[in-house]
Amino acid sequence: MKTVKHGGNIYAIANELGIAKEEIIDFSANINPLGVPESFQKALMKHMDIIKNYPDPEYKALTEAIAAHHGVDEEYITVGNGATEVIFSIISALRPKRSLILAPTFLEYERALRKAGSDVAYYLLKEENNFQIGDEFLKTIEKDIDLIILCNPNNPTSQLIDRKRMYKILQYCEERNIHLMLDEAFMDFVDEFDKETMLPYIKDYKHLYIIKALTKFFALPGLRIGYGLTSNTTLLEEVKGGKEPWTVNSYAALAGEIVLQDNAYIEQSRIWIRSEREDFYRGLKAIHKIKVYPPKANYILFQVLEPSRNIKERLLQKRFLIRSCDNYPNLNDRFYRVAIKSKGLNHQFIKALNEVFYED
Amino acid sequence: MKTVKHGGNIYAIANELGIAKEEIIDFSANINPLGVPESFQKALMKHMDIIKNYPDPEYKALTEAIAAHHGVDEEYITVGNGATEVIFSIISALRPKRSLILAPTFLEYERALRKAGSDVAYYLLKEENNFQIGDEFLKTIEKDIDLIILCNPNNPTSQLIDRKRMYKILQYCEERNIHLMLDEAFMDFVDEFDKETMLPYIKDYKHLYIIKALTKFFALPGLRIGYGLTSNTTLLEEVKGGKEPWTVNSYAALAGEIVLQDNAYIEQSRIWIRSEREDFYRGLKAIHKIKVYPPKANYILFQVLEPSRNIKERLLQKRFLIRSCDNYPNLNDRFYRVAIKSKGLNHQFIKALNEVFYED
Repeated sequence: MKTVKHGGNIYAIANELGIAKEEIIDFSANINPLGVPESFQKALMKHMDIIKNYPDPEYKALTEAIAAHHGVDEEYITVGNGATEVIFSIISALRPKRSLILAPTFLEYERALRKAGSDVAYYLLKEENNFQIGDEFLKTIEKDIDLIILCNPNNPTSQLIDRKRMYKILQYCEERNIHLMLDEAFMDFVDEFDKETMLPYIKDYKHLYIIKALTKFFALPGLRIGYGLTSNTTLLEEVKGGKEPWTVNSYAALAGEIVLQDNAYIEQSRIWIRSEREDFYRGLKAIHKIKVYPPKANYILFQVLEPSRNIKERLLQKRFLIRSCDNYPNLNDRFYRVAIKSKGLNHQFIKALNEVFYED
Repeated sequence: MKTVKHGGNIYAIANELGIAKEEIIDFSANINPLGVPESFQKALMKHMDIIKNYPDPEYKALTEAIAAHHGVDEEYITVGNGATEVIFSIISALRPKRSLILAPTFLEYERALRKAGSDVAYYLLKEENNFQIGDEFLKTIEKDIDLIILCNPNNPTSQLIDRKRMYKILQYCEERNIHLMLDEAFMDFVDEFDKETMLPYIKDYKHLYIIKALTKFFALPGLRIGYGLTSNTTLLEEVKGGKEPWTVNSYAALAGEIVLQDNAYIEQSRIWIRSEREDFYRGLKAIHKIKVYPPKANYILFQVLEPSRNIKERLLQKRFLIRSCDNYPNLNDRFYRVAIKSKGLNHQFIKALNEVFYED
């Protein structure tokens, strides 16, 4: 099994260019530009010495905070070192024989599935359908599939499966004993996310697993904290039994307790995304050399219509780092993903991209 | 696979007793009582916002700091979420069929081995030999063993295998293609640790794997950082390929870079352990109701000579938490492990233990 490239690797790039990583304007990682919540920074200053103890192996206070935030039972929750640990550990406990994932989607699903010995089938998203799943999705599911993983909104496409359609998928899976893992790591950025999340179905659907992360919405990717929710408590017991102890560090556990209650930060973030997603999308769409797919999350996928423009390298000369999608199945080197950042940076980026296309 | 009890779980105990966890005097976790190094606290204040980026997936700066500290090649190093992740991931990559561990020893080896599908054989340490390994050790190794794990100094016995003896074991293993994993998480607390560590043999012995942690010596158990060293770079590639990305959080990576260079803290810690280990040991030995095993690390194993004294519960009433060793193979509920703490707390503990024995 090989490691894969992700966005956000500003270290290697800075090293390559011989500049400080602070000089890079990072559009490659999908992180809330409001930055680390002040509420957490204050709590960290106050509780800096909590790391002199081992973390609570049960993560009780953190689990309570998550349960209260979502209004779900504590016993339905498992926490992990980022969403990634939760994804790997649930898959490892489910031991699927054959799994279905989207193409393209987040690359770690396939790594986790291969590690667990699962065969992997792809549902190929169609470019002409803006990479949304089609009405025929359920009909294409082969009989031997025992796990379906859907990232919603999907990464890197920023497309959403709406709740009406997702509910049909859920019913289909529950009736056929197919496990359905929904990665909602970016759901909080969606307009009316509370009408789209499948969290309300956790209690009654034992085959449903929802993955969440604090990484993106609360701008804490370096802290490593994610969690999973399911009412399949038998499986959760196995997940917890197979885990290494203390994988969530004490500062991350503290952050979880604090930021989920930071309503000011949450509200500010919603105001930002509502305003800047539309603004950035319109700005990009005005560049006729690219095709932009209408975004639902905090990032935007676009395709360069003329090949071999060396977009990424030429933007890097201007210090802008973007995510090439050439290592995603079903995409190629003409596709790029950019994060939505502050209005000022988004406008600078659009200007830079225009220069790349029109200056030579 | 089940989770196991460890020391340091002050959360459950505080909850049970209905008191704040700060009220517990924790002798159950083997942590340097000098506390979180100030050098790290200062660096943390200065670089609080590094978590807004993903950690460097290569952990280059951290790896360089470790390499410089030990004078080994960077390519021999892998970092992890505490020593535990390194242990689990190396065992997972080695895929041993049958492994040998000490009894008693750190409990996570067996969990990691079972998870990797390995059979587990025990070398039973003898109480009458103070739980030191005997001269017959090599002769007892069955032909089908392909991995030996030794914790040195051993946890929970605080016994050391000296370098002369360990060198013979290393030679034996190298000649027979047996992998030898040495967990030196507590080596830095040993007198003349630099004459006892097996790090100098890393380069020339491809079957040697050394595990280290910053957790104990630098009092950072809540931060989660450990690493492994081996010149078997083929295996390391596999370890890195099979790992989840970003398991070491950015603050932990920063800590590694900072504390390994904090010579003042390191020196102060050595002065403390040299003085307090002997002092605490003598104090405990003077209590004739227990047998104390001469310690080499920063913790002490003792046996209560009269059964059923409810030592742990009665000490808890006085707010002292100790580690019962009843869940270690080859020990029972008469064995306890206590950390060596500051002179004042050690004396308070001895007084409390005396009261437990002589007050009724």
